[in-house]
Amino acid sequence: MALLNQNYLKLKAGYLFPEIGRRTATFAEANPQAAIIKMGIGDVVRGIPRPVVDAMKDACEELAHDESFHGYPPGQGYDFLLEAIAEHEFGSRGVTVAADEIFLSDGAKCDAANIQEIFAIDQVVALTDPVYPVYCDANVMAGRTGEADDAGRYEGLVYLPCTAQNGFSPALPDRHVDLIYLCSPNNPTGTVMSRKVLAGWVDYARREKAVIIFDAAYEAYIADPDIPHSIYEIDGARDVAIEMRSYSKTAGFTGVRCAFTVVPKQLMAGTRDGSDMPLHGLWNRRQSTKYNGVSYPVQRGAAATYTPEGKTAVRSLVEFYAGNAALMKTELTDAGYTVYGGDNAPYLWIVCPSGTDSWGFFDILLHKAHIVSTPGAGFGSEGEGYVRLSAFQQRHKVEEALQRIRQL
Amino acid sequence: MALLNQNYLKLKAGYLFPEIGRRTATFAEANPQAAIIKMGIGDVVRGIPRPVVDAMKDACEELAHDESFHGYPPGQGYDFLLEAIAEHEFGSRGVTVAADEIFLSDGAKCDAANIQEIFAIDQVVALTDPVYPVYCDANVMAGRTGEADDAGRYEGLVYLPCTAQNGFSPALPDRHVDLIYLCSPNNPTGTVMSRKVLAGWVDYARREKAVIIFDAAYEAYIADPDIPHSIYEIDGARDVAIEMRSYSKTAGFTGVRCAFTVVPKQLMAGTRDGSDMPLHGLWNRRQSTKYNGVSYPVQRGAAATYTPEGKTAVRSLVEFYAGNAALMKTELTDAGYTVYGGDNAPYLWIVCPSGTDSWGFFDILLHKAHIVSTPGAGFGSEGEGYVRLSAFQQRHKVEEALQRIRQL
Repeated sequence: MALLNQNYLKLKAGYLFPEIGRRTATFAEANPQAAIIKMGIGDVVRGIPRPVVDAMKDACEELAHDESFHGYPPGQGYDFLLEAIAEHEFGSRGVTVAADEIFLSDGAKCDAANIQEIFAIDQVVALTDPVYPVYCDANVMAGRTGEADDAGRYEGLVYLPCTAQNGFSPALPDRHVDLIYLCSPNNPTGTVMSRKVLAGWVDYARREKAVIIFDAAYEAYIADPDIPHSIYEIDGARDVAIEMRSYSKTAGFTGVRCAFTVVPKQLMAGTRDGSDMPLHGLWNRRQSTKYNGVSYPVQRGAAATYTPEGKTAVRSLVEFYAGNAALMKTELTDAGYTVYGGDNAPYLWIVCPSGTDSWGFFDILLHKAHIVSTPGAGFGSEGEGYVRLSAFQQRHKVEEALQRIRQL
Repeated sequence: MALLNQNYLKLKAGYLFPEIGRRTATFAEANPQAAIIKMGIGDVVRGIPRPVVDAMKDACEELAHDESFHGYPPGQGYDFLLEAIAEHEFGSRGVTVAADEIFLSDGAKCDAANIQEIFAIDQVVALTDPVYPVYCDANVMAGRTGEADDAGRYEGLVYLPCTAQNGFSPALPDRHVDLIYLCSPNNPTGTVMSRKVLAGWVDYARREKAVIIFDAAYEAYIADPDIPHSIYEIDGARDVAIEMRSYSKTAGFTGVRCAFTVVPKQLMAGTRDGSDMPLHGLWNRRQSTKYNGVSYPVQRGAAATYTPEGKTAVRSLVEFYAGNAALMKTELTDAGYTVYGGDNAPYLWIVCPSGTDSWGFFDILLHKAHIVSTPGAGFGSEGEGYVRLSAFQQRHKVEEALQRIRQL
């Protein structure tokens, strides 16, 4: 009989968000009158800016006519978008990223899950704990781990605890690792890595010849001018780091799907015979074989975020959600909660009231306040005792949610 | 040093189409006056039907407003589309496929490349020769093969020769295999599998407890009423087959990106302890972890292909390209070429004139007739001695190309 990929059987429960969805659906069905406020999954709720929508509509119209039709997109993306990214996301901050080092995709999640495929199966992977589950699960499914223990930690992975004690900034591994997933602004803790901390990681990776997979999907939420937006702001990072970005939380593209990954041409990995090769070519081969590019109207929409009108509109969207986060942090703190994150990120990492654990507080918020949160334990054993609240919501719902929480 | 996935080093040369692109670009640069006609990559050229474009534009407009905004799409796709697919692609032909057995994606190529991930790494894979390179390369990259020999055949794969002698319909394997990739209408040969032949494969798979991965991306081009459009038209196929479809060659979606894969709930694969599990759940887990759904406007566009106006327009597009194929077959045959395929498929499989091999005839067509073809050898060793011509071109360019070929 055809055999399945046994590594899938190691995965603990379902992927976190479907499980939240199931619990929420069960509650909603039993309580149809409850006005549930979703602050769990981190999906945006506001309309996409007009210049971006108009660009997408114009591009759709182009596709209607033979003279302006566009078929298969170029492998890495259209030059009009790759060049705009290189200029506006990197060049404008003094960071050198060439247009042909950028690979467009339909999601930072997809890239974060797929990137491990270009590395050897016996590579040692370091993950923060708590962590965005995709980094972990993709490596489990690929066979880079053993079984999970009772705490949900997989044999063979190196976990880097992020706790209130270390300010959610993990210590460098006390051993050699090959791949390191870092996320700043962080999902789920909402905290950020300072320039000094990030420089420490780049230094570690250069010393250990490791590769950093840097997820910067939330960089637009950085308010503090001293926090790096790109890992390439750190000297030497181009030799050791891959970076991921997304339009999901800037232009509201969660339903539109566009993101990109930067693989610097000088970034190398080794072969078993001791030579080395650029990862750029490997990722290009992976994408040209297993992927087929981003929808043309979507690329036009993404490019419109770099026009003056687009930039203003995106800035306004980000500031709106950042305003939610600030309001939530102030009011929850006033209400007696201990709250981390939220200053340079759209996520708040909230300590569960004493006597409750993550899923317990999740259930209290759902059943008593009709609020969907994300249980911290879903992000790893060090997430136990926390819930994550997302600032991606309409203002009046945030205010209503805060009022309900105060009344708990 | 971080080590790369050594399996990538086994891959022979670049992925076929980038290599064609490179040769074409080199020629075009040296001969800027040449009016090159592209009949290689199989990309469509005609505008997307009006009802589909309008549906996409309306959906973009919906996204502009908070009240009608859509964020992360449901994992498998929106019900409005999944249900339309179940009804119009399957139910209307008397085939039972439930909406929740359908997984929407951004490309049949992506699904065909990714599907192997849910199977064990030691599974024996059977491929036709010639074959769409993605099936092969994805398995090489995953580590399911040894090195390639001089003929480009990878150790560990079971090759099923498709030759003029066997009517491009491969014999059943004379041994056990676990996974079988079949494509009908076939890319590259343009030939189709009859009901009897397909039933033979389903019977083999049931007997050997193998899984068939059936790529039906070109089913809309089937003109012969006796040829099955779906493998599920064969009794018992739901127990052994996964099927892939695409909007690329029907609604002109090569640049828009939408496709779907059917995994019947009763389709099982084994675990190492001798039990079995539904592949539906595994593919769902794969997609929910490593993928994030199809763009909302694109899903609305795909759904519009099932309206009465959409159906008429898509039919007209398909008939246009099918008309090209018929014209090409007639004229090339008249000109003395031996031509296969093209009756129920948008591809023609042309025997190279004596004294030329695939890349040789590719170069003659490019240099003397300024036509881009696809060398058959790029699809496998049994493709040597053929080139593939695609019917996806404007009529006047097809006519011009045929005239140039007659003058060779």
